[in-house]
Amino acid sequence: ATSVLVNGCARRSAEEPLAQSKKALKKQQKEAEKAAKKADKQAKLAAEQQTTDEEDFAKDRYGLSPMLQSQQKLDRVLVRVQDLTPKKADQLVWVRARIHTSRAKGKQCFLVLRQQQFNVQALVAVGDCTSKQMVKFAANISKESIVDVEGVVRNVDQKIESCSQQDVELHLQRIFVISQAEPRLPLQLEDAVRPEVEGDEEGRATVNQDTRLDNRVIDLRTTTSQAIFRLQSGVCQLFRDTLINKGFVEIQTPKIISAASEGGANVFTVSYFKTSAYLAQSPQLYKQMCICADFDQVFCIGPVFRAEDSNTHRHLTEFVGLDIEMAFNYHYHEVVDQITDTLVQIFKGLRDRFQTEIQTVNKQYPSEPFKFLEPTLRLEYKEAVAMLKEAGVEMGDEEDLSTPNEKLLGRLVKEKYDTDFYVLDKYPLAVRPFYTMPDPNNPKYSNSYDMFMRGEEILSGAQRIHDPQLLSERALHHNIDLEKIKAYIDSFRYGAPPHAGGGIGLERVTMLYLGLHNVRQTSMFPRDPKRLTP
Amino acid sequence: ATSVLVNGCARRSAEEPLAQSKKALKKQQKEAEKAAKKADKQAKLAAEQQTTDEEDFAKDRYGLSPMLQSQQKLDRVLVRVQDLTPKKADQLVWVRARIHTSRAKGKQCFLVLRQQQFNVQALVAVGDCTSKQMVKFAANISKESIVDVEGVVRNVDQKIESCSQQDVELHLQRIFVISQAEPRLPLQLEDAVRPEVEGDEEGRATVNQDTRLDNRVIDLRTTTSQAIFRLQSGVCQLFRDTLINKGFVEIQTPKIISAASEGGANVFTVSYFKTSAYLAQSPQLYKQMCICADFDQVFCIGPVFRAEDSNTHRHLTEFVGLDIEMAFNYHYHEVVDQITDTLVQIFKGLRDRFQTEIQTVNKQYPSEPFKFLEPTLRLEYKEAVAMLKEAGVEMGDEEDLSTPNEKLLGRLVKEKYDTDFYVLDKYPLAVRPFYTMPDPNNPKYSNSYDMFMRGEEILSGAQRIHDPQLLSERALHHNIDLEKIKAYIDSFRYGAPPHAGGGIGLERVTMLYLGLHNVRQTSMFPRDPKRLTP
Repeated sequence: ATSVLVNGCARRSAEEPLAQSKKALKKQQKEAEKAAKKADKQAKLAAEQQTTDEEDFAKDRYGLSPMLQSQQKLDRVLVRVQDLTPKKADQLVWVRARIHTSRAKGKQCFLVLRQQQFNVQALVAVGDCTSKQMVKFAANISKESIVDVEGVVRNVDQKIESCSQQDVELHLQRIFVISQAEPRLPLQLEDAVRPEVEGDEEGRATVNQDTRLDNRVIDLRTTTSQAIFRLQSGVCQLFRDTLINKGFVEIQTPKIISAASEGGANVFTVSYFKTSAYLAQSPQLYKQMCICADFDQVFCIGPVFRAEDSNTHRHLTEFVGLDIEMAFNYHYHEVVDQITDTLVQIFKGLRDRFQTEIQTVNKQYPSEPFKFLEPTLRLEYKEAVAMLKEAGVEMGDEEDLSTPNEKLLGRLVKEKYDTDFYVLDKYPLAVRPFYTMPDPNNPKYSNSYDMFMRGEEILSGAQRIHDPQLLSERALHHNIDLEKIKAYIDSFRYGAPPHAGGGIGLERVTMLYLGLHNVRQTSMFPRDPKRLTP
Repeated sequence: ATSVLVNGCARRSAEEPLAQSKKALKKQQKEAEKAAKKADKQAKLAAEQQTTDEEDFAKDRYGLSPMLQSQQKLDRVLVRVQDLTPKKADQLVWVRARIHTSRAKGKQCFLVLRQQQFNVQALVAVGDCTSKQMVKFAANISKESIVDVEGVVRNVDQKIESCSQQDVELHLQRIFVISQAEPRLPLQLEDAVRPEVEGDEEGRATVNQDTRLDNRVIDLRTTTSQAIFRLQSGVCQLFRDTLINKGFVEIQTPKIISAASEGGANVFTVSYFKTSAYLAQSPQLYKQMCICADFDQVFCIGPVFRAEDSNTHRHLTEFVGLDIEMAFNYHYHEVVDQITDTLVQIFKGLRDRFQTEIQTVNKQYPSEPFKFLEPTLRLEYKEAVAMLKEAGVEMGDEEDLSTPNEKLLGRLVKEKYDTDFYVLDKYPLAVRPFYTMPDPNNPKYSNSYDMFMRGEEILSGAQRIHDPQLLSERALHHNIDLEKIKAYIDSFRYGAPPHAGGGIGLERVTMLYLGLHNVRQTSMFPRDPKRLTP
């Protein structure tokens, strides 16, 4: 379907001016915005005009396509925008893309056609096969509409700085609207990708978070969003590939559960036929049951639910957990090593395979590259407390870390060890859940750990108590009703291997790896106490 | 840590009888059962006896280990049971495994040690480094307990038919209990893997489904369960690998939603702070939003919830959906082809990589190998109705298929085309959801399809209406309140590419691929109207 062009229409188009200076482009962008507003009003008229104008020699070359209902199997190749390069110069190609911007000027109209993070300039100019009416029609197509265009790929003399495809433009000979966007958009894509600092310093429009989230279908089209969620897809892929290579088995655990295992706080209630049930706060019980059922090394990726009324930058009521559980031989550090290695493989994979996405996000949200050590730095809780005290923090030895202290510790560790990723090991027993295995050498501490990225917790884990007797004692010590966790404790009565594990928050890993500052940026459709839509 | 053995203890052991005849083994199994019962009573006594017996020269070679609390990092290699082969003959090795069966006889005790689907015979016999007390201790360890043993790998003269490791046995020199099982098990593993036909014809014990599910931690230890869920892990892996190779992006969609998009039937309600919410019946709206947000080709794996009071072999209230959504160019068959190819890649991958698991499941649940064609057979609904009518079924042309008719159709298709997998295309519009795109050529039909394995539906899908105007009309025609689905319809107002997709039920794919007959066998912790635990 692509072919070297020989007809006159294309030659004529090729003589038109090819590229714009930066200044001119800026000016044109402003004009385009004006024009777009004007176009809004005229979009509907255009279609009508077209049908009534009998003198239009190009009338078969443009228009609104009938709704695409799979009427026919067209043998037409649609070329991807990212493949529009000088290699295709002088070829006639079909492309399906969105109208990113449009700017009409006399007898010609410049369009920017967008496909995900790629865009290309297109020109519709009056000529042998392009009528005035056709240029007008093109100029009036509302932004974000999807069009099928046929055009000739032409090399340009001067790079088109504003487009991803800088070396070519498309000289259009046909343009059909596949899906029309409403003329008024709830947010402008160019505002949505503007760095906050430009908005602040230059007084240019940016888009606030609620507007973004309320109109997520449009906000997700920005280069930044496309990059964030393609990278997040990569995190899941790297997590699984690493674990499957290590011999882990993927499991699926139920989200509707009959009893809230940790006492019933922060849990959502579900009506379940004539009774009620709860949404799982983590897959932990089920992961542990799989270990007791000899699956040996398991992982799962799935939603976890927290009915916590926390309105912070890092809390969601529903998020995606990357969970690991593993039987070990003699020491839970065997598990810690597997988890840190998995995270390191993720960091390396992102660095090596997602550099384009990282750079794209950095344009809007600048941040330092994520640093990590091999082997991963492991500090004991005691050492961390000492570092904090040395830095002037007043706290008890067995007190939990506050969020500000975690952040400060992150900075201290970064200064001292030059890493954004580390493990904090041997938490005080008192600040961990009842099922945490006590330290064999010091009963005030435990075989538990958190992992941190850029000073924020992304994983919490521990060796679990696999002995039903000790587990019952510890539950009683935490004032937990043994009746309510009977099923949990019974899981360990028929031989249970020593095991440890942890749960990673996917949105936090993506946020902190990219140096972003709100977990809502890395959740496609975030849920918090105040947001349930879209 | 493994080493060729030179000490006398091992030589002495090596002279003991090595393997048993089949008949003897059967007899011994019975005896083992008896012995196990006896052992149950004596297990606790054994430990006490041991500490009081001062004359025991082997007393440091066995016992109950203190709870493994990560006291030390032992530099000891634990050999996997599956690696115990003649290559390791005469080496002294450590193994951690469960006591699968034990049978004491005079001065010796035969154990079968199990690790997942692998097991090996072990012998504890009175000798230079094994005392009477040690043999007694070993014989009294309750089944399913986890032990660390040290022993010499010995070739056997006659294959040990009852074990996966048929060519060697372990002559034990040390045995320590790592985790004790309660003496009375709620179900016996050998009963749980017995084919139903043996149970029926030979009057031997089998385990009913509720007992299995109530004691899932033990039931999942059987070779059959291990094989089923390892293969299921493979289904997910193959699904994702295929789609990622095709350029799909993995997405995560919320499960807590503010409105039930299809009118509110069969949906679970969740208390959400001061308001209520629902559990998503499918990720469809969110998949479609991602398409409208230019992700182009997306998939997700996650729980879906159906508050349907259906107590059948194939319905669950919570199951795992493998979901696909994809923009297409000109015809929804482009999407159908991608989905069928994905399923074919899964079938091939299972056949080629999971043959051991398939054979293991077949031992308990015999079935014919799963057959499929390339390219996948695609029938039109009309043709299917004609086939059914020819087979004597009375039904209207635009009537939906009943479950028995689907099964019958599956048999007819198998006879005629020799395939267990096919697509049924172009369903009557009236039996599909409101968002289904009508057939452009016949308004009574639609661009929708189901896919079948062994005569049961595993996927339902369609081209979706991407035009907000037609979508509203169709919703009204279905008496759906437009206000309630406003957010859904609005998603298509800013330019929406034509797209299609479908949702696959993971548990059904696993069940039908393996020729099983109840979806609870392929859900680790199934949820139905009557079951919420464990």
